[in-house]
Amino acid sequence: MISGKNQIGKLLVNAGKDTFKTYNPKSGEENEWVFFEASPNEVDQACELANSAFVEFRNISDKNRAQFLREIANQIEDLGDELIQTYCLESGLEASRALIERSRTCYQITSLADTLDAGTWKETTFHKGTNDLRKTYIPLGPVVVFGSSNFPLAYSTAGGDTASALAVGCPVIVKSHPMHAGTGDLVSSAIIRAAEKTGMPNGVFSNLNAQSYKVGKALVEDGRVKAVGFTGSIAGGRAIMDLAAARHEPIPVFAEMGSINPVVITTLALQRNAEKWAELYASSITQGTGQFCTNPGLILGIESPELDQFANLLSKKITEIKPTVMLGSSIKSAYTNLKEGILMQEGVKQISAKIEVDSNIADQTIVMVSGQEFLKNSRLHQEVFGPFSMIVRCTSEEERYQIINGLEGQLTGTIISEKEELEKTKKIVERLSYRVGRIIFNGVPTGVEVCPAMQHGGPYPASSDSRFTAVGLHGIRRWIRPISFQNFPNTLLPDELKQ
Amino acid sequence: MISGKNQIGKLLVNAGKDTFKTYNPKSGEENEWVFFEASPNEVDQACELANSAFVEFRNISDKNRAQFLREIANQIEDLGDELIQTYCLESGLEASRALIERSRTCYQITSLADTLDAGTWKETTFHKGTNDLRKTYIPLGPVVVFGSSNFPLAYSTAGGDTASALAVGCPVIVKSHPMHAGTGDLVSSAIIRAAEKTGMPNGVFSNLNAQSYKVGKALVEDGRVKAVGFTGSIAGGRAIMDLAAARHEPIPVFAEMGSINPVVITTLALQRNAEKWAELYASSITQGTGQFCTNPGLILGIESPELDQFANLLSKKITEIKPTVMLGSSIKSAYTNLKEGILMQEGVKQISAKIEVDSNIADQTIVMVSGQEFLKNSRLHQEVFGPFSMIVRCTSEEERYQIINGLEGQLTGTIISEKEELEKTKKIVERLSYRVGRIIFNGVPTGVEVCPAMQHGGPYPASSDSRFTAVGLHGIRRWIRPISFQNFPNTLLPDELKQ
Repeated sequence: MISGKNQIGKLLVNAGKDTFKTYNPKSGEENEWVFFEASPNEVDQACELANSAFVEFRNISDKNRAQFLREIANQIEDLGDELIQTYCLESGLEASRALIERSRTCYQITSLADTLDAGTWKETTFHKGTNDLRKTYIPLGPVVVFGSSNFPLAYSTAGGDTASALAVGCPVIVKSHPMHAGTGDLVSSAIIRAAEKTGMPNGVFSNLNAQSYKVGKALVEDGRVKAVGFTGSIAGGRAIMDLAAARHEPIPVFAEMGSINPVVITTLALQRNAEKWAELYASSITQGTGQFCTNPGLILGIESPELDQFANLLSKKITEIKPTVMLGSSIKSAYTNLKEGILMQEGVKQISAKIEVDSNIADQTIVMVSGQEFLKNSRLHQEVFGPFSMIVRCTSEEERYQIINGLEGQLTGTIISEKEELEKTKKIVERLSYRVGRIIFNGVPTGVEVCPAMQHGGPYPASSDSRFTAVGLHGIRRWIRPISFQNFPNTLLPDELKQ
Repeated sequence: MISGKNQIGKLLVNAGKDTFKTYNPKSGEENEWVFFEASPNEVDQACELANSAFVEFRNISDKNRAQFLREIANQIEDLGDELIQTYCLESGLEASRALIERSRTCYQITSLADTLDAGTWKETTFHKGTNDLRKTYIPLGPVVVFGSSNFPLAYSTAGGDTASALAVGCPVIVKSHPMHAGTGDLVSSAIIRAAEKTGMPNGVFSNLNAQSYKVGKALVEDGRVKAVGFTGSIAGGRAIMDLAAARHEPIPVFAEMGSINPVVITTLALQRNAEKWAELYASSITQGTGQFCTNPGLILGIESPELDQFANLLSKKITEIKPTVMLGSSIKSAYTNLKEGILMQEGVKQISAKIEVDSNIADQTIVMVSGQEFLKNSRLHQEVFGPFSMIVRCTSEEERYQIINGLEGQLTGTIISEKEELEKTKKIVERLSYRVGRIIFNGVPTGVEVCPAMQHGGPYPASSDSRFTAVGLHGIRRWIRPISFQNFPNTLLPDELKQ
């Protein structure tokens, strides 16, 4: 069922000459399917079709768009085992994870449909003063979504970005992630079937294959595109931000990028529950082979026998976990290079045992460094994408505050403390709040619940724009803008502003 | 009372060597006061002070910040005649306008105080699922505001940008507009008195004088600054957007820029009420010497005897209005140059009588061109800042739709039609909605009401970010970002998230 072609609205096309294959990180071999790299002409066609579809799509009722979304979820479920198998062959992840991610993806889609049914997302505002003013929201226009490497379903083809843009009436063009183009191909076909079944205009969705940077660049630079969603590295996200900012008409980019997700742990908490926290964090750091954007990569403690004990326990427990495969060979080599780079820095010591691993398997690693070294060496603040975490031994609370204040923007921050430490904890919460988008108490940062109270996005470089979230129902706010109607007769108003 | 110095928190400083004076556009002479251009060191001091003030300011209660805002309004009122006289001497505008603008400015400030008292701006969201998640909003950090030339009070020192940023806990550094530095100096002193009286930390407000581009550039590039507000030209706004986008940490810029505010008028409306519309539009086009961002610069009609009659009436009525002075000689010469540039374009004809005027007085002008010429020549889409409007004679509804679809982003669009024309009007509303931020029925676009249902901001280049408004209570959304608290004990939560 995988065509390998570019999906431009209803059409499957392969006009270009370049092809590529995906790779099975477990076997180290290429998968069978051949994918056709989108040609410049196909990029242009997808943009033109999205632009013309927008005129009709934006006027389709919320009720009908909700049907479309629900049908997408149905069609994805109907892909059945083929989707799960393809996912596993392209990502190296287990079928159990694929099933969880598929559920999450479909839940995201259907909960957006529920939001449309509830009819509150337009946040209508009314005012009768000198004039009668009524405000509602309208969609921005065609949106480009870049598939992410680490979530072939939930943050890719029909992931949160796509679903939230379609929900509000923005056509979507996906630049499929080349590492799981087959998964994208299948999901893409599901979206097209759903669009046809529910009578959506041709062009509300397109899916382009690309290994080269050129296709993404051409999409971001196209004048018909009005916003971009991206999940990935800081380098990738920043490149897209720069392209978008340099356009004749600059457009918003929602890039969810790197984060080391600092965890602040008090000595009292370690004294009481070192074992429990070591267990939880060994599991959190290695979850998904550490390839989660909320992976806890930085643990800030105060030097003490309790911290040493925790460090030993965490190192021991993490070594007991069976190493798992990374998403691809390029991700594995980036992991190794970044980890080695950190280990070469002054004062950094690996405290977990060295693990021998095969090609694409990641060796989980815990390192330790002093607060002083961390403060003076910004290379230590870099994300190491994978099952890696750094324990920082601070000499005092003051030094730890200084470290928190100096951190770059983060998706999350976590505080582990005991009830007796209220004042100290308050101070940490206050400082950490201004460096992160979500703050967790006595837990782990991995696990991003899909709900309206979720904020997934933090100050740069965690996100390109901290005022928006990539997860949860408020994600739709990225793709809409307010419009006011002044002194309008009832009949000419959008329904939600009538009466 | 005008010191001419830079206000850095409580301190008045004049470390730099460069000075300048403001200019009285009515007399054509310089005003008496001497202003000291901010030095690089003073820019640095203002940023440092704002940054350190932020830590305290962000934790001040809404109630106390509301008191601060109300006291700013009181202190501005207390400036009395000196403020009104200075305003007139620096702007050439009448005292009556100064009084209206002062009222508006104080109303903006106190209505933000009311919003703080109402306690709803944090849009708290609660969710209890696998986790207990609670979302609120926090301020971004120090904000730089550029004073605007055309609203020395309402969009400058203590204008909407400043007041909305202070309301949510962001310290503000104003780059004072050099054309009304004295007005800015007085208002700045009022803000400082209010800050001292209500116990705000030193550094919540600074005001820097500058004629050169350098001060603004240094402010936008400073890492401690987290957002920028600007009202002015497309060239100025875009330059700031580009600087902000190129920073190590890109920051949001809210630039409210140019707009020609298209007006679509039906033949039936002209047949019935040509006189009334000509009267209203002659007045709207010349209001504030045409120096309003919502000035109607483009009138789209269908060629017909009714349109010709309207064009004649409008030309006649506008010529009867006494020409008034512009804000400065540079603005007058820009007006003349742009107008002459438009008149030199193929097919453009001045239809209002030529008016002889003195140096800084603007000669209100109506021109006419065919739809075909307008479609093919993008120079005709340029804003002519001043009392100028262009009537476009379209040969058909189709041509007019084409023109609307091809317009660049606008702050406003207006539709003038009769009740019998529902279907046609609906089509126009639909198309125009996607080019503007506010749409007016049977009225004029000038007059921007301060209320929550107002959207002042449209697609680029009308604004840098159409998802936000520069006027109305939702203007505060520019300076805040969401943060989620996960599984927090009640005592550690911000008050609005407790229980």
